[in-house]
Amino acid sequence: MKIIRSTTVMQEKMIKISKSESIGFVPTMGYFHEGHLALMKQAAEDNDVVVTSIFVNPLQFGPNEDYEQYPRDEEQDIRLAEQAGVDILFIPSVKDMYPTKMNITLSVEERANVLCGRSRPGHFEGVITVLTKLFNIIRPNKTYFGLKDAQQVAVVDALINDLNFPIQLIALPTIREHDGLAKSSRNVNLANDERSQAVWLTKALEHGHQLVVDGEQNPAIIVKEVIDVINRETSGTVDYVEMLSYPELQSVSTIKNNVVLAVAVQFKRARLIDNIIFNENGKLIRQFY
Amino acid sequence: MKIIRSTTVMQEKMIKISKSESIGFVPTMGYFHEGHLALMKQAAEDNDVVVTSIFVNPLQFGPNEDYEQYPRDEEQDIRLAEQAGVDILFIPSVKDMYPTKMNITLSVEERANVLCGRSRPGHFEGVITVLTKLFNIIRPNKTYFGLKDAQQVAVVDALINDLNFPIQLIALPTIREHDGLAKSSRNVNLANDERSQAVWLTKALEHGHQLVVDGEQNPAIIVKEVIDVINRETSGTVDYVEMLSYPELQSVSTIKNNVVLAVAVQFKRARLIDNIIFNENGKLIRQFY
Repeated sequence: MKIIRSTTVMQEKMIKISKSESIGFVPTMGYFHEGHLALMKQAAEDNDVVVTSIFVNPLQFGPNEDYEQYPRDEEQDIRLAEQAGVDILFIPSVKDMYPTKMNITLSVEERANVLCGRSRPGHFEGVITVLTKLFNIIRPNKTYFGLKDAQQVAVVDALINDLNFPIQLIALPTIREHDGLAKSSRNVNLANDERSQAVWLTKALEHGHQLVVDGEQNPAIIVKEVIDVINRETSGTVDYVEMLSYPELQSVSTIKNNVVLAVAVQFKRARLIDNIIFNENGKLIRQFY
Repeated sequence: MKIIRSTTVMQEKMIKISKSESIGFVPTMGYFHEGHLALMKQAAEDNDVVVTSIFVNPLQFGPNEDYEQYPRDEEQDIRLAEQAGVDILFIPSVKDMYPTKMNITLSVEERANVLCGRSRPGHFEGVITVLTKLFNIIRPNKTYFGLKDAQQVAVVDALINDLNFPIQLIALPTIREHDGLAKSSRNVNLANDERSQAVWLTKALEHGHQLVVDGEQNPAIIVKEVIDVINRETSGTVDYVEMLSYPELQSVSTIKNNVVLAVAVQFKRARLIDNIIFNENGKLIRQFY
């Protein structure tokens, strides 16, 4: 596995590679868990060359968010990426990615003003700006994201379609701990009691899903029940529970086509998210490939 | 010369071509004059394959601007492009470029809030949005612009640098009529008396430049003299005369490095722009290559 830290070197190399080989790209902020590794492994199955980037992007963190305390372990990431079949690990510096103040900014309207976008203003603007840069540097044929951040997948879908990136978006299932908690780099920031409570995010979503399977069609009722479960079973503060059309992320009065039921809960040092996607019959949608 | 109207067909074709040949791209709104043709001819000298696009982009016209009356002559454009050495003429429809409401928007800060950007809010946002789409569809190695719209060149320079497009920006000299008037598709909308007055935009800029050559360093004095000449010699209304650093487009108190002296004048049915770029010694800068 090759490690490249310079954007210029990377771009020149990728231009050459793209002439003869297919490229799969897994953008990450590092501190790999099995969710990341599943994306890399799938990329290795699908493409000639697998590129993973590690870049904790300051642009997508708000002033009061956890940019500084976001967990980092480059040495372990290098080892894990190599094992997962990554060919090129791209680890640019902030200074190389943002050498001067950005004059051009990207913004996203409808899909960003709900869920995490509401409590994290500017977050998805930062995400799509860095992704546009990375897409232009790496020129992938396919890019891989985990559905744990379903809103991010929806926003990247809009980015690729609206701006005609010749890239196929692959969204893979959320990887979970044995008890069901969605894997997240932020889980290490949970206190012990919070860790055992955190599984209730998933259980609450499953409860909401079961209501739909049992015939409930009113989003307000489902959302309320999910909130009640989380409030009863955890010490965290509910940031949101929402049920929206997917991937359009519009509010729905009844369930048609795909919807996402999503939750964010703030614990003391970690804000966790989780979601479940299903259609009007309650059939679970685990990936978009 | 091949004519392609579908974005999908175009993108697939260009992905293939880019694997083995260098691509020069001239984005236009059509109604070709010698300015456009000079860009195409240079692109043909520099690259294996020359692509020109014709797309009157509704996104870059304000509600009270001349989108509808912007001149169009596809038949003549096809003939001229072929003569100029274009290999592929890309003529997408509005519906194919914007099949749904755009969710992602690009904006530009510092370089857009002066000159034409001030009187045409949203104009450069529209320009960089459509260019990002076209760059992703066409994947050029080099892209060609005329310096007649010096602000557009500055904004495209920011777009390419900020978002890491692997594209070299080539800015070529303004092509002029025999009397000095900058060639423009909008010149056909000038009344007869306006056409003979219009040369005074150029003459006024040359007068401003001569002041610098003669030792004047105060932008305010130079700008005032240029405005006086235009007001005296034309029936048009001065939209702006500004002298700014180039390509940063920051206001300057004295001339250091490159500056642009730029003018926009509104005639009855045509709004004309022109500019002149020079350094602190008055040396003219005619192209960026």
